[in-house]
Amino acid sequence: MNLSTRIESAIRHATGDLKGCNGPGKLAAAIDYALFPGGARIRPTICMSVAMACGDDKPALTNAAAVALEMIHCASLVHDDLPCFDNADTRRHKPALHKAFPQSLAVLAGDSLIILAFETLAKALRQDSVRAAQLLLTLTRRSGVPVGICAGQAWEDEDQIDLSAYHQSKTGALFVAATQMGAIAAGQDGEAWYDLGALIGEAFQVADDLRDALNDAETLGKPAGQDDRNGRPNAVLQLGVDGAIQRLSDTLAGAIASIPSCPGEATLAQVVRAYAEKLTPVEPSRTVTPLASSSKVKVTL
Amino acid sequence: MNLSTRIESAIRHATGDLKGCNGPGKLAAAIDYALFPGGARIRPTICMSVAMACGDDKPALTNAAAVALEMIHCASLVHDDLPCFDNADTRRHKPALHKAFPQSLAVLAGDSLIILAFETLAKALRQDSVRAAQLLLTLTRRSGVPVGICAGQAWEDEDQIDLSAYHQSKTGALFVAATQMGAIAAGQDGEAWYDLGALIGEAFQVADDLRDALNDAETLGKPAGQDDRNGRPNAVLQLGVDGAIQRLSDTLAGAIASIPSCPGEATLAQVVRAYAEKLTPVEPSRTVTPLASSSKVKVTL
Repeated sequence: MNLSTRIESAIRHATGDLKGCNGPGKLAAAIDYALFPGGARIRPTICMSVAMACGDDKPALTNAAAVALEMIHCASLVHDDLPCFDNADTRRHKPALHKAFPQSLAVLAGDSLIILAFETLAKALRQDSVRAAQLLLTLTRRSGVPVGICAGQAWEDEDQIDLSAYHQSKTGALFVAATQMGAIAAGQDGEAWYDLGALIGEAFQVADDLRDALNDAETLGKPAGQDDRNGRPNAVLQLGVDGAIQRLSDTLAGAIASIPSCPGEATLAQVVRAYAEKLTPVEPSRTVTPLASSSKVKVTL
Repeated sequence: MNLSTRIESAIRHATGDLKGCNGPGKLAAAIDYALFPGGARIRPTICMSVAMACGDDKPALTNAAAVALEMIHCASLVHDDLPCFDNADTRRHKPALHKAFPQSLAVLAGDSLIILAFETLAKALRQDSVRAAQLLLTLTRRSGVPVGICAGQAWEDEDQIDLSAYHQSKTGALFVAATQMGAIAAGQDGEAWYDLGALIGEAFQVADDLRDALNDAETLGKPAGQDDRNGRPNAVLQLGVDGAIQRLSDTLAGAIASIPSCPGEATLAQVVRAYAEKLTPVEPSRTVTPLASSSKVKVTL
């Protein structure tokens, strides 16, 4: 079974109970809508890749870790798209959840996904109480406050933004969770895998900034130019396009160099390299000029 | 230390880290605003009372259970007050969280509280991995889908409401969690405590319906007459005031009769009786006539 099939199957397995049950049908449909079809499934892919590099001796535990991560990620997308945040109309090339369902169900689908994530890990305690406990502590830490993705999103409401903390928590946190949880699921020390997650997260943030600045909505599957429009910090605005591409390349090289010694070290480096190629912006689908007058750089292509 | 002091101290202890940390200050303030000052703290009171009736041999575990429950409850209040749900202006005699803070922070405070609840229980795994695992499974089940409070709230978006499932999940679920988690924290079988929680939940729902119909906003600390206005099922509309008061009395008697045999059975029965007195409506602060023409009973006082 390839990685992609394994991830989809694991997520489907963890949510299978919702379909046949007697709960409210629209909420079950909204949860399904938030999870399927997925995006790139980057976080569970990294999580599983790290676990496999470490031996993956308890695959069910790895699956639980990957599923829980993806559920938290999808919950954050659903809530971030709400009118009081990004007010996004589209996500993953289809209407945002609050456009396809009542807004109340978008809030509840996000809440339910957060709870399902921890339920998935709580069930995994039966398989290995020590590792699953560490998985739970890692995911709660990287999802909530003060350093998880909730905190990351909340930095946008502060008068003074701690830029480093903002990026580390908003984007980096779940990548750190991905590498650490992959290692923990395979019985390794999560701490040693912090740098890899943090650096992949940093690269992802820069790549996302580049895509946001350079691509149109059709390519992205969500509204383009949102950072600029919403006055959010963005690597392209700070460094220019070329500078941001260089930063992306350097960061990914650092990520590969940071991989701790493990049986599957070489294969994992290949996975990160392939991921780097995916992240590097290709010819953008149209020329974009900065949307807001506050832009500090001119985007030239 | 009396129960109320113990609860406040436990909640404060579990959230103490947020204050001095370097996370986003407004989110920390919003979380504090959602938790303090509390309401009646009914769910943690029931949880601790059951644990004490069962011996309370691991008080730190009981504290974690009670705190996690209250966090989930407060999260649900914050989200339920949002404009896309009840659109409530006030809660606990002060502005609803989304009125005191940006709406985005109300969503994030709710999300963070859900995560904090599970983080609190995950930390308790160190004290007793078996009991804490059961606490986690119980709380996830009663918070999420298909039978938790998320499902309960989502029934309101269905075209056909399963009334029994609606009440059991929207209100009953966290009371079931309260009694079961109290028992589990003290090393007892949670299943035996299902009926007590379900019946207290049922009584609470009827009492809430009575208060919603009979009291004004000043007494309630939140808008009155919301069920009628929002077309929600309500015991007063089904049974009339006298019928609802009789139902409340019968249900609480059933709750007391359902208490499983345990060392503190008599004391726990007293607690439930005292709670029953608190629940029973006193002279309402004004005469209320049904707000919607669909009302099936005339409310006479």
